[in-house]
Amino acid sequence: MKLLEDYILKEGRIIDGNILKVDSFINHQINPTLMQELGKDLAEYFKDKGINKILTIETSGIAPSLMCALYMNVPLVFAKKAKPSTMNDSYTTTVTSYTKNKVYDIVVSKEMLNEDDKILFIDDFLANGEAFKGIEKIIKESKASLIGVGIIIDKVFQKGHKYIIDSGYDLYSLAKISKLEDGLITFE
Amino acid sequence: MKLLEDYILKEGRIIDGNILKVDSFINHQINPTLMQELGKDLAEYFKDKGINKILTIETSGIAPSLMCALYMNVPLVFAKKAKPSTMNDSYTTTVTSYTKNKVYDIVVSKEMLNEDDKILFIDDFLANGEAFKGIEKIIKESKASLIGVGIIIDKVFQKGHKYIIDSGYDLYSLAKISKLEDGLITFE
Repeated sequence: MKLLEDYILKEGRIIDGNILKVDSFINHQINPTLMQELGKDLAEYFKDKGINKILTIETSGIAPSLMCALYMNVPLVFAKKAKPSTMNDSYTTTVTSYTKNKVYDIVVSKEMLNEDDKILFIDDFLANGEAFKGIEKIIKESKASLIGVGIIIDKVFQKGHKYIIDSGYDLYSLAKISKLEDGLITFE
Repeated sequence: MKLLEDYILKEGRIIDGNILKVDSFINHQINPTLMQELGKDLAEYFKDKGINKILTIETSGIAPSLMCALYMNVPLVFAKKAKPSTMNDSYTTTVTSYTKNKVYDIVVSKEMLNEDDKILFIDDFLANGEAFKGIEKIIKESKASLIGVGIIIDKVFQKGHKYIIDSGYDLYSLAKISKLEDGLITFE
């Protein structure tokens, strides 16, 4: 998606060699008009696939997912990174983030997913796919179906992209980065 | 706002005496069309007040804030509850949550706020106002101006409402709950 690639080139910064910082328009400050365009594009791609619910993970997946949910006219559920005291039974799994060098839980209330659900999972970044594997596990446990995966920025040179494709899921990424080196961003 | 009050009466549940659970449409599953209406209503109220940036706190404030930001055509910044390793200088303050019985940080990068900013702060709930006081402190430190406060569900019988009014801020709450007792929700 050209609009997004232009934003990444203009406002993104590479730090520590291979971390792309997009905090001026995606994950700290959010550009609402850009989110609207991202959501619209995702909704257009997935519109005829029978999706009845969107799933994301807090926090940075919420903005593009919400816009997509609005255009698809379906509810959005966000997995939480800690179980609130007010939540009853939940699907819970542990995710290891290599980039952030930490382990965290992702939690979805059992009330939010059921076997009739046809899920579109959306996230802001795809790198090693650890968060995705957690979501995949939760969806399997709930007996819902994972119909598609929408990613804002897909670092296709890391392991997650191949894992999702090899698993046979319908993956749609708005920006595919094939290389992050020497301060340069290369799109596929 | 009647639409929101109807949702609260229909889908909200009271647990542990005075906690209102709205996880089927606001803070776990999100109804995007409702969020659009809430955002539109907030934008309409604050439209002529010179606001150039919206500030919220992750996670549940993001959805209504994003919709308001879209209608007002201004960026949205969400304060984080932990400082990412990739963030440089930040405004950081500590918030005590009585309801959740824990202490957490709220963090905003210094790049995101400056003395010319005229801020609308939006949050999903107002109870004791502790999160608000943290935001107030961060805004003061950044020398930005806090122009208004938009709240989705205001538990006016707790301390936060009075604190914000007494401090002279322009507070606009979409649903004002004056009593939560014996499983009954009473609106002001």
